[in-house]
Amino acid sequence: MFFASDNSGPVHPEVLEALSEANMGYAMGYGADAQMEAVRQRLRDIFEAPEAAIYLVATGTAANSLALATLSEPFQTIFCSPVAHIHEDECNAPEFYTGGAKLTLVPGGDKMTPKALRQSIAGEETRGVHGPQRGPVSITQVTERGSVYSCDELTALCAVAKDYGLPVHLDGARFTNALVSLKCSPAEMTWKAGIDAVSFGGTKNGLMGVEAVIFFDPKHAWEFELRRKRGAHLFSKHRYLSAQMLAYLRNDLWLSSAQAANASAAFLAEGLRNAGATFQSDPEANMVFAALPRSTHKRLMAAGAVYHLWDGPLEGPDDAPVTARFVCDWSISREEITAFLNLL
Amino acid sequence: MFFASDNSGPVHPEVLEALSEANMGYAMGYGADAQMEAVRQRLRDIFEAPEAAIYLVATGTAANSLALATLSEPFQTIFCSPVAHIHEDECNAPEFYTGGAKLTLVPGGDKMTPKALRQSIAGEETRGVHGPQRGPVSITQVTERGSVYSCDELTALCAVAKDYGLPVHLDGARFTNALVSLKCSPAEMTWKAGIDAVSFGGTKNGLMGVEAVIFFDPKHAWEFELRRKRGAHLFSKHRYLSAQMLAYLRNDLWLSSAQAANASAAFLAEGLRNAGATFQSDPEANMVFAALPRSTHKRLMAAGAVYHLWDGPLEGPDDAPVTARFVCDWSISREEITAFLNLL
Amino acid sequence: MFFASDNSGPVHPEVLEALSEANMGYAMGYGADAQMEAVRQRLRDIFEAPEAAIYLVATGTAANSLALATLSEPFQTIFCSPVAHIHEDECNAPEFYTGGAKLTLVPGGDKMTPKALRQSIAGEETRGVHGPQRGPVSITQVTERGSVYSCDELTALCAVAKDYGLPVHLDGARFTNALVSLKCSPAEMTWKAGIDAVSFGGTKNGLMGVEAVIFFDPKHAWEFELRRKRGAHLFSKHRYLSAQMLAYLRNDLWLSSAQAANASAAFLAEGLRNAGATFQSDPEANMVFAALPRSTHKRLMAAGAVYHLWDGPLEGPDDAPVTARFVCDWSISREEITAFLNLL
Amino acid sequence: MFFASDNSGPVHPEVLEALSEANMGYAMGYGADAQMEAVRQRLRDIFEAPEAAIYLVATGTAANSLALATLSEPFQTIFCSPVAHIHEDECNAPEFYTGGAKLTLVPGGDKMTPKALRQSIAGEETRGVHGPQRGPVSITQVTERGSVYSCDELTALCAVAKDYGLPVHLDGARFTNALVSLKCSPAEMTWKAGIDAVSFGGTKNGLMGVEAVIFFDPKHAWEFELRRKRGAHLFSKHRYLSAQMLAYLRNDLWLSSAQAANASAAFLAEGLRNAGATFQSDPEANMVFAALPRSTHKRLMAAGAVYHLWDGPLEGPDDAPVTARFVCDWSISREEITAFLNLL
Repeated sequence: MFFASDNSGPVHPEVLEALSEANMGYAMGYGADAQMEAVRQRLRDIFEAPEAAIYLVATGTAANSLALATLSEPFQTIFCSPVAHIHEDECNAPEFYTGGAKLTLVPGGDKMTPKALRQSIAGEETRGVHGPQRGPVSITQVTERGSVYSCDELTALCAVAKDYGLPVHLDGARFTNALVSLKCSPAEMTWKAGIDAVSFGGTKNGLMGVEAVIFFDPKHAWEFELRRKRGAHLFSKHRYLSAQMLAYLRNDLWLSSAQAANASAAFLAEGLRNAGATFQSDPEANMVFAALPRSTHKRLMAAGAVYHLWDGPLEGPDDAPVTARFVCDWSISREEITAFLNLL
Repeated sequence: MFFASDNSGPVHPEVLEALSEANMGYAMGYGADAQMEAVRQRLRDIFEAPEAAIYLVATGTAANSLALATLSEPFQTIFCSPVAHIHEDECNAPEFYTGGAKLTLVPGGDKMTPKALRQSIAGEETRGVHGPQRGPVSITQVTERGSVYSCDELTALCAVAKDYGLPVHLDGARFTNALVSLKCSPAEMTWKAGIDAVSFGGTKNGLMGVEAVIFFDPKHAWEFELRRKRGAHLFSKHRYLSAQMLAYLRNDLWLSSAQAANASAAFLAEGLRNAGATFQSDPEANMVFAALPRSTHKRLMAAGAVYHLWDGPLEGPDDAPVTARFVCDWSISREEITAFLNLL
Repeated sequence: MFFASDNSGPVHPEVLEALSEANMGYAMGYGADAQMEAVRQRLRDIFEAPEAAIYLVATGTAANSLALATLSEPFQTIFCSPVAHIHEDECNAPEFYTGGAKLTLVPGGDKMTPKALRQSIAGEETRGVHGPQRGPVSITQVTERGSVYSCDELTALCAVAKDYGLPVHLDGARFTNALVSLKCSPAEMTWKAGIDAVSFGGTKNGLMGVEAVIFFDPKHAWEFELRRKRGAHLFSKHRYLSAQMLAYLRNDLWLSSAQAANASAAFLAEGLRNAGATFQSDPEANMVFAALPRSTHKRLMAAGAVYHLWDGPLEGPDDAPVTARFVCDWSISREEITAFLNLL
Repeated sequence: MFFASDNSGPVHPEVLEALSEANMGYAMGYGADAQMEAVRQRLRDIFEAPEAAIYLVATGTAANSLALATLSEPFQTIFCSPVAHIHEDECNAPEFYTGGAKLTLVPGGDKMTPKALRQSIAGEETRGVHGPQRGPVSITQVTERGSVYSCDELTALCAVAKDYGLPVHLDGARFTNALVSLKCSPAEMTWKAGIDAVSFGGTKNGLMGVEAVIFFDPKHAWEFELRRKRGAHLFSKHRYLSAQMLAYLRNDLWLSSAQAANASAAFLAEGLRNAGATFQSDPEANMVFAALPRSTHKRLMAAGAVYHLWDGPLEGPDDAPVTARFVCDWSISREEITAFLNLL
């Protein structure tokens, strides 16, 4: 009954197998391995982006911070949601990598609205050299509260950014969970909507620790490579990153893993709903945020369920509701979920 | 006939096996896994340092930069050899992580002498607030030219640093190759000599991508953890770093791998010497820097040997000598070396 | 009819005279001048703080950024009002000087409340290494909206900070305007309330460009000196900063100038009120934020009045109110204000 | 008998007078003052550079650091002399402002040679992403040892930089001392030789604290403005910087002051030579580096002469020579120098 995070689950066996296969003799290091060339071709095909510059790093924070640093200047501000991972969960890594850029929190919830984004951008308008300059917009897909922007919503946000000439970054730590939820193409969810750079997550969806960074316009490619090296995120034995990503993209493992995770979350949500839990918004990918009585929460914890409370006091009266976050990864079994639901 | 680098070789099978073993169910992320606790205990035992703070990162540059950033202030200068990896091969990562500290290059070769170090430190003496302040000393063991400092040499360098109250960092990307060469204990090669923090390499000695950072005095531990997270070097699926390091330390794999690499290098050096090559200094670990006629070099290259030229022009007359660097990793076979020597 | 800013006015003649007096022969540079010793003594007396470390810089942004960088770590967040100068008007200078610390905007208006501050600080509580760590609190006195915190209010805010062990910085760009408004002592408005470091402004109150930075506990003194030099804010001909500050503190020029500015603002506010303008809050120092019909604003502008609109669209219907900011400096004459009021 | 530094002398009376004249009523702040427009025109005329972007800051370190940060990227290295002010005397300010760029010290003395510069630049050639990338060249004119590059020498250095596509910065803290020594035009000493950006010093030549930064190609202008503000070097009461610079350029005060200083240094050098002192190189501007017996030095000090020893131990045998640096500013009188020489 482990719902704490999709980065606590195991690595998919096909990925481990690919590591073994890659473990033959010598290979050029630092991204010059043959597998990386294959990764590049595969992702360009998948994204219908033959010019895209594509890189691998090992953590989502590295992907986000390096992408944003490449798209911004230290005297700018980055527009994002108040609950964005880059703001809340990266211990100032974006500020570090950008050399001290600011993050402007667009008022609202996990999903930015075009109106709120426009107001935030416009609000940085009249200070000349005194305030920070407008920098990139960063959108999280799946959001940190489990919502999925539709392609139209993404397009509308990007349109606002484009009105001001600002680049757009997509934090896709759960990219594939969103993709299979929307049933659209990777191109539709990114550059066709106006996205310039993507953190394309793998770690939360069955890899050991690999994320791709994709720039649809390769003009920043060399700068990114230097920033990656300077950030100590260029791997000497790079083939083992490449091999993971290749296995991920082979046989549609990325898609089937995300589908499994999303289906598990839907099954869990249904069970929670039947047990009386309520949701702020309908679960759309592999995360469920459910309101439960604190007494129920205590009972579940005591029985060994593992998940996080969200947005609320750790202590409180038993009849007050708590919000619990349940995350399903690719590996969780129907039996485990059923066992948990039976506890309810 | 691949002698290009010890980070181009394969991962040791026992390490891959350990990854498979670790791949069971869920595990707490971000370093809270049970294997990490075992790593910590094992390294504390090995180093006879029960108080040591111990962390894992995935690249040597991360280990060095984060260790140095933790030991220094942005208005200081770090003392190192002119050929130190932190100066030549990290694309300003130490400057980035320290927030703009300087590197003072101690005149001389790959090995710093106590006299030159003292002069360099003393040279920063009389400028008050105008010049950079004295910061850590960073020593590379094995050096970038294949030499190994004796424990007495390390002690003498540390004594100079201590005279000025400066902390000492050891870049041990090839820590174990030095250790088995010296036949001393890890404690003797580090804290007993006066070293405060160690980058304890694994990647060049059979791991996929893991280095430990060890602080013998844990006072900086929390700061290091924050700097690691801020640098995007804290892995969510941390157990796969821990598992590698555990396998490395189990059954003395770290020692046997380094012994194999050093023995291969000695065998290669002997063959090179017999073929007329000369050495700047006797090979002491797993790297051989040999002077060859350029004509020989061309013949070797044409026959498929892979290694790097060092310190010289890429083009030149056939009878002028070139300096070639040959690195042996744990996996190279006696047959492969013999085949290469036969070419000579 | 110039009410645009108190940093657009002239330098007080006594200050210019002091510059002339200081212009004799040679003087040790970089803060080793005899006048600086006198400044130090005078400010220690004024603040009843015999141990205080005291430095001069030439801009308010330098004072704030260097003070905050000295009090914080790059992995922390600084708590301040959403309209704080350090957030809105310094083009990311605090982020630059701190090495990438974050600014957490305490919800509310120009004045932070203890409750909102406590909630903001508490909100950074449960993320361990993932979120930024709690750093200094920065309070602006006079606030950016012309309000003045009472000593009790300051004490209450500092008490919250102290509950969490956080240092408190006071951005006193208009320190003296607040002081004469409160009729308290400098010690009461600072360290007796719990303030640890002060940006003690002079530029907005008749100096050419000098601000003092005061640390009541001198433990950070040397670090500040190095950060100041590294920030390029240490003046070689430092005596001309010292001379300005000495003139400011001599004959109570600092107090009389602030009293004159505040009195002018009060006179202006009274006139505005009589003419029907309304205030969000009563003017307490030398700034007046008044709501006027846009038609009136247009008439005033056309007649040559100079001031800034605040928080509203630059264009709009004539009958909609605008908020105008009027700032009085030490030099504005009663005649000029009367001329302006007659226009109304 | 004060020869310690040209930044310890007084401000020229005409400059103080200009401050008084500027002290009338209100003026737009932050560089929007009318005097700044006049400064811009005047410097464009003097430099025959009608497109040049021109800014004022208050310290030489700010001018250098901001210029270099504008011309470089954080993953680059800046080429300069081992005795350059930016390396030795700015407490890592260039590293801070550039976000962690490195400084490569071109082997040799105070004057870089084209050959040594070319070797240094070429030496950064073969490391791809691993080493720092080649960045700007920074030349100091007058050098830190009192030498003056001829226009041909500058042209030759710039030609090397241009061969590699690198921009060139001139640290002209003593720009005018060099100019009047060379008897060339400002254009000849800068953009006609290939210089891209200049720190045009005023503080060491009679101003209170003003340096201009000049970019001959204005493409970086806006970035510089943002970096200046972010560095806290944009003055609100900017007119007092402008007024100083205007007075400096009016009536050729800049030229006559430098001529006076150089003439004093020549007079002093002649006297020193007659007294038996020797020079490493002939004094060419306003600094004299002379070798004296330590016994003589002690006698001079005892008699109240003020100057710095250079490159040598503070203590030593009486008959061993010391190297003393004597700097003459615009204000030193022939009588004072004569008094000093009489002591000898």
